[in-house]
Amino acid sequence: MKAEIIAVGTELLLGQIVNTNAQYLSRELAALGIDVYYQTVVGDNLERIQDALRLSSSRADIVLLSGGLGPTQDDLTKDALAAFLGRTLHIDRMAMDAIERFFRERGTPMTENNRRQALAIEGGTPLPNETGLAVGNAVSSDDVHYIVLPGPPKELMPMFEQQAKPWLMQHVLTHEQPIYSKMLKFAGIGESSLDERLQDLITAQTDPTIALYAKEGEVTVRISTKAPSESEAMDKLDGLEAKIRERASAFMYASEDVPIEKVIVDLMADRGWTLSAAESCTGGLVMESLTSVPGSATMFRGGVVCYTNEMKEKLVHVPHGLLEGEGAPGAVSREVAEVLAEHVRMITDSDFGLSVTGVAGPGYAERKPVGLVYIGLAERGKETEVHELHLQGNRETIRIRATKALLYRLWRRLMAARGES
Amino acid sequence: MKAEIIAVGTELLLGQIVNTNAQYLSRELAALGIDVYYQTVVGDNLERIQDALRLSSSRADIVLLSGGLGPTQDDLTKDALAAFLGRTLHIDRMAMDAIERFFRERGTPMTENNRRQALAIEGGTPLPNETGLAVGNAVSSDDVHYIVLPGPPKELMPMFEQQAKPWLMQHVLTHEQPIYSKMLKFAGIGESSLDERLQDLITAQTDPTIALYAKEGEVTVRISTKAPSESEAMDKLDGLEAKIRERASAFMYASEDVPIEKVIVDLMADRGWTLSAAESCTGGLVMESLTSVPGSATMFRGGVVCYTNEMKEKLVHVPHGLLEGEGAPGAVSREVAEVLAEHVRMITDSDFGLSVTGVAGPGYAERKPVGLVYIGLAERGKETEVHELHLQGNRETIRIRATKALLYRLWRRLMAARGES
Repeated sequence: MKAEIIAVGTELLLGQIVNTNAQYLSRELAALGIDVYYQTVVGDNLERIQDALRLSSSRADIVLLSGGLGPTQDDLTKDALAAFLGRTLHIDRMAMDAIERFFRERGTPMTENNRRQALAIEGGTPLPNETGLAVGNAVSSDDVHYIVLPGPPKELMPMFEQQAKPWLMQHVLTHEQPIYSKMLKFAGIGESSLDERLQDLITAQTDPTIALYAKEGEVTVRISTKAPSESEAMDKLDGLEAKIRERASAFMYASEDVPIEKVIVDLMADRGWTLSAAESCTGGLVMESLTSVPGSATMFRGGVVCYTNEMKEKLVHVPHGLLEGEGAPGAVSREVAEVLAEHVRMITDSDFGLSVTGVAGPGYAERKPVGLVYIGLAERGKETEVHELHLQGNRETIRIRATKALLYRLWRRLMAARGES
Repeated sequence: MKAEIIAVGTELLLGQIVNTNAQYLSRELAALGIDVYYQTVVGDNLERIQDALRLSSSRADIVLLSGGLGPTQDDLTKDALAAFLGRTLHIDRMAMDAIERFFRERGTPMTENNRRQALAIEGGTPLPNETGLAVGNAVSSDDVHYIVLPGPPKELMPMFEQQAKPWLMQHVLTHEQPIYSKMLKFAGIGESSLDERLQDLITAQTDPTIALYAKEGEVTVRISTKAPSESEAMDKLDGLEAKIRERASAFMYASEDVPIEKVIVDLMADRGWTLSAAESCTGGLVMESLTSVPGSATMFRGGVVCYTNEMKEKLVHVPHGLLEGEGAPGAVSREVAEVLAEHVRMITDSDFGLSVTGVAGPGYAERKPVGLVYIGLAERGKETEVHELHLQGNRETIRIRATKALLYRLWRRLMAARGES
């Protein structure tokens, strides 16, 4: 079963708003096992909406339209669909009653153009609007099914969920199987390296299917299958997950769609472990990421942003001799990363202490190159680990990559610690 | 001049991401006076990308493609465009050098599939990628101009701004009158309040035009005009800017597109003023925002994230009696915000000290409601100011709004201090 989405609205073509409806509807259709092959945006123009309908109906079984149901002369979606199908429009009595009631209760006079919002297509099913005035429509013609939805997301979403989806299930999807998905999350590995490790699985994929998506410092693998029941789907998905995990177990931190900081906070809260951090070039980004997770107050104690050498001495007691003077390794060094992690852990009496010191750029510091970053990880009673990173990108990217690298190392360490305890 | 935008990516059709690139490009094209009639989204499929190209090139003068330039076998945009135009692909030497350098500096081996990111279309202009690896392309054929851009917004936006836009101006828009714009930036005021203050100007607008865009905690007003020369354009834009400033001078922090933290860093660096911060509920976001600005090392000394009461005592010497015990105001209070700002200023010996303490939620702390936040601002030799905020939204929004509110107060204070000195 193939579907297309046509969003109608000149405001989309001017870039005044972003097309979140297409995302919502695509996700909902995917969950119903319906493939979306195209999304189109077209302006408030009678001819061009009909052109879009002609094209979509030649390619798809289901065409969803959003927007252009308002009261003004620019709102032309139903007119265009009716003209395209060669059908008439009539006022839907129930929708009209709701509109009249709305204005009566508000005590304001209804203007004539508001009647347009009650229009329904001949031979179709009006879809009531629980959160607005414009009625939706569902209509079938020549084996293509059209669904007309309002543009505002807070009207479109409930109408799709409560009206359009049941209509589709009852009239269109009578023989389809639902689709089930699982998201596997990876850190510490790039998209192309992961792609290579999974190459044979990706090439051979038929059911379940595999798709990779990369964000800065993390990769998501989505595996999906159609099945008559959830348990049958999960059997297939779990089988593939095991094979994927086998090929990249050191990098897979979750089998649901969560950021690595959430996994870290949960792991630490669960064990009663506490954490602190001393940040130089990341300027607070590591602590900000961790504290963005609800519940982080139970494991995160606090920390320090020590941007200058003076503050590294004053706030984290880094020996002056490491920072300045002849033969000193300098602020951006393995030695300082180590001391920062260990001292912040001791000052805050935490189980783990993190540190970052490096050159985020632009410009050079201590004649060290932009992108050179040291990350440190101290653990109570254990050896401190320090990693040297050579990061690419602009200031922002380097800061994000350093943060993600440190969180990945912390996750590895926590997994090891959990194994020991 | 008509344009279309084709976004390539199955992740868009699955609803996993929202098509913000189409919004960005539409807005940029509108600013260049180019009409966008259609936006299309198509999956990672060689045939269907070519079908989309066939249709768009039959309707438009300019076709922008985004996405599908990555290293994997699913990334097919350049292959599809080359096949559609009947041209070959070759490795662009400069792009390949950059990719090889990236892997060399990182010390990781380059996988073979990364070479795909250096592909360029025969007879076209490669567009360098300043923030990523995949090279873009601009190519003209049969009076239609094609521009191929990477999918990640962080790569697409700078490539459009620095490469594609100049190429369009030079090769395509040669007879158009150039459009000039100015961005006026506001903080401390909401979009609808600003809209009301500017209502008469917005209603009467013909030339220059006025458009408002809101982001969390800031509003941008873009004023634009077409003119034969920059000086004529600036005369018109400056005149309108003066009228707008008159109506909202307490909130307008810049007449170029910069974040408020950039204005703060520049103002302070210019005067040799120094800054520090003590953050509780924002967890480092204030310091992270300020240190995201290049050059912040000259004015930002450092600070503390004191997430727990114990750390507020230990790291910032907040008296125990303010935090706990009968009649204590508690961590989320005017008193603690004041002490945090003053103490962190003194500990770091800075000219200004900032503080945030509040309830970002979810869940209640000290039986105080989610959204209650106190922000403090201490200045050497001056009275400390504290503001009580009642913020709406989820955890993330509350943290951002508290940060923006504090930065706005700091900017006001710096403007006043500059007036005095």
